[in-house]
Amino acid sequence: MKIALDAMGGDHAPAHPVAAAVQALARFPQIERLVLVGDEEAVRRELAVHGAQPSDRLHIFHASQVIEMTDSAVEAVRKKKDSSLCRAVDLVKEGAVDAVVSAGNTGALVAACTIKLRTLPGVDRAGLACPMPSRSGVWLLLDAGASVDARAEHLLAYGCMGSIYAQHILGIPSPRVGLLSVGTEESKGNELTKEAFPLLQQAPIHFIGNVEGHGLFEGAADVVVCDGFVGNITLKTAESLAKTTFKWIKEEIQANPLRMAGALLAKGAFQTIKKKTSADEYGGALLLGVNGICVKAHGSSSVHALFNSLRVACESVTRQVNPLIIEALSPQKHSPAP
Amino acid sequence: MKIALDAMGGDHAPAHPVAAAVQALARFPQIERLVLVGDEEAVRRELAVHGAQPSDRLHIFHASQVIEMTDSAVEAVRKKKDSSLCRAVDLVKEGAVDAVVSAGNTGALVAACTIKLRTLPGVDRAGLACPMPSRSGVWLLLDAGASVDARAEHLLAYGCMGSIYAQHILGIPSPRVGLLSVGTEESKGNELTKEAFPLLQQAPIHFIGNVEGHGLFEGAADVVVCDGFVGNITLKTAESLAKTTFKWIKEEIQANPLRMAGALLAKGAFQTIKKKTSADEYGGALLLGVNGICVKAHGSSSVHALFNSLRVACESVTRQVNPLIIEALSPQKHSPAP
Repeated sequence: MKIALDAMGGDHAPAHPVAAAVQALARFPQIERLVLVGDEEAVRRELAVHGAQPSDRLHIFHASQVIEMTDSAVEAVRKKKDSSLCRAVDLVKEGAVDAVVSAGNTGALVAACTIKLRTLPGVDRAGLACPMPSRSGVWLLLDAGASVDARAEHLLAYGCMGSIYAQHILGIPSPRVGLLSVGTEESKGNELTKEAFPLLQQAPIHFIGNVEGHGLFEGAADVVVCDGFVGNITLKTAESLAKTTFKWIKEEIQANPLRMAGALLAKGAFQTIKKKTSADEYGGALLLGVNGICVKAHGSSSVHALFNSLRVACESVTRQVNPLIIEALSPQKHSPAP
Repeated sequence: MKIALDAMGGDHAPAHPVAAAVQALARFPQIERLVLVGDEEAVRRELAVHGAQPSDRLHIFHASQVIEMTDSAVEAVRKKKDSSLCRAVDLVKEGAVDAVVSAGNTGALVAACTIKLRTLPGVDRAGLACPMPSRSGVWLLLDAGASVDARAEHLLAYGCMGSIYAQHILGIPSPRVGLLSVGTEESKGNELTKEAFPLLQQAPIHFIGNVEGHGLFEGAADVVVCDGFVGNITLKTAESLAKTTFKWIKEEIQANPLRMAGALLAKGAFQTIKKKTSADEYGGALLLGVNGICVKAHGSSSVHALFNSLRVACESVTRQVNPLIIEALSPQKHSPAP
C-alpha cells in the first residue's frame, strides 16, 4: 500500500511527521511507499537527522505552501492549492496513494477531502471517528469535530458508519451504538437528539439508546454518536482532564521525598494508566464518509501519535470499510424494516 | 438564616440528606433553622440513627409524595404537588426559608423553581452554575444542564450571572468569562456560539472570547458559558473520567505488592488530587436566574457532597447575588456601550 503524509501539518512539523515516517517504514512492511508531502528542503533536512534519505519506499512530494492552524478552512483549501495538505489529498484523489494522514488544520482537511474526494453515496457530511479508552478496551466518538450544527440524518449516518468501523476495524462483533445525551431515557435530550433517536432505532445497527457522559469511560457503548460541536468539546475536555490529573498528581508527589520514593515503586501503575488515557496511543481519527481514506492526527501530535495514525491508515487500507458503508447506506437498506 | 432540604431527593435519600443536615447544623451556626422536607416517619427514623431529633433548629415538614429521577419534569411538578421537592420550593416562595437544597430530579427542580419562584426580571431561562476544579482554584461551568436548546440571549444572561456569582460568591475580582467552543478564534463555533459571541463582547463583563475543552482545567477562564446540553455532557464526562482514572490506577497498583507498598507512601498525593477532582468537594450547583436561592446537588450525592451543597446555600444567602443580577440585566445596563 501507498500512504501520503502531510509533512508540514501540526505544531511540530516537519520534525514529528518525518520522524514518524521513518519509524513506520521500519515497522510496517506492508507500506510499499510513504510519500512525505511538503517543503522538499525542510523534509530532506529532517530526514538527515534520522540518517535517512529518499528511497523507493520513501518519496518526497514538494509542496510550496503550508495551511496554518489559524487559516479559514474552505478559503485555505481554495487559495493554497500547492499546500502540503491539499497536495496530499490530491494524491489520494489521483489514485497515487491509498490513504492520507495529516496533523494539520482539521477544518481544512475535512474541507479538502469533502471538496476533492466527495462524500460517499448516501452520506451528506463526513464525521471524524476518534478512538477513546474505556475500561475494557476502546470506544469510538463520532463526530469528534468534522462539522458543527449537524442534523438528525447526519447522526444517523454517523451511527451506521461508526458501527461498520467498530466491527471491521476494531473487531467488535455487533457494536453497541449509543446517542450522546443528557439522560438515558428517550425523552431526555435536545431537539437534535430527540429527532435522531427514532432514526437510529430504525437503522440496521445495534442501537442501545441514549448514553450519558458518565458512562463513556465505563464502556457504556462501543460507538457514541453526537454532533461535531459536542464531540469536539467532549474529546478535548477528556484529553485535557486526563493530562491535568497526572500533572497534579506529579506535583503533589514531588512536594514530599517520601511520596517520591513511593511513587517510584508504583511507577509501573502510573505508566500503564497514563498510556491508557493518552491520546497518543489511539492514533488518529478516521474521517468517515468521504470517498477515500483520510486519517486526522492531533495538531499537537507527538512522533508516537503520528506513528499510530499511520498504523490506523494501514489498518483502514487493509480493511476497506467504504464499500460496506456504501452498501449499508444504500436507499434499499436505509428504509425502515416493515 | 433558614434553609429547606429535600430529604427525599437523590439516590441515597433520606439517609444522606438527613446525615448532611445533622453535620451542617453542627458546623454552621448561621443556620437558625434547617427544614427537612419529606416523609416524616422516614426522616425521624434517619434522625434517630444519628441520635438526633426535631428541635428549634431542626424541623421536619411532612410531604407525602416523592418525585422520582425518571419522572417527566414539568408533569411531575404539576401532578405531585405534595412532593418533597415541590414543598421545599414552596417554602422559599412563601418566605418561610431563605434557600432550598435538593439532590432530586434536576429537570423537576428547575421546573418547580421556574414555575413557582419565576425568573428574575431580564432573565428568560435559569442556568445551573457548577463549580469545577482548576490548577489554581475553581471555575464555574454555566449552564450545567438546567435547559437544552439555549438561544444566544440565554448565553448572554449566563455570562452576566456567572460573572456576578464568581465575583461575589467565589471572590474572584473581574472574573474572566469564556464561551465554550471548538476553537479560540471568533470564527470557530456553531450557529449558537457565533451569535452569542458579539452579545457577550458588548456585555458589561470581562469577556475573553472562546475557550476550548483543552483549557478548562488549566484555568483558561473563571466562568465558562455554554448551552445546557453541552454543559451537562462536559460536566458528566469530566466527573466520570476523573473517577475512572483513579479506579484504573488503583487496579493497576493492586496488581503488584511492590506497587501497593509504594502507593502507601505516596497516598497523601493521591488523596489530595482525588479530593481536588471530586465533585463532592464543590458543593451543589446554584440555579442562577430564579427569584430565590436554589442549590442542586448531584443525584448520587454523598453525605459530604450534600453538606457542601448546604454550605453553598449558606454562602448564597449571605452574599445575595439576585439584586446584583437584576441590576446588571436591567434594560439600561443591558444596552451596548455607545
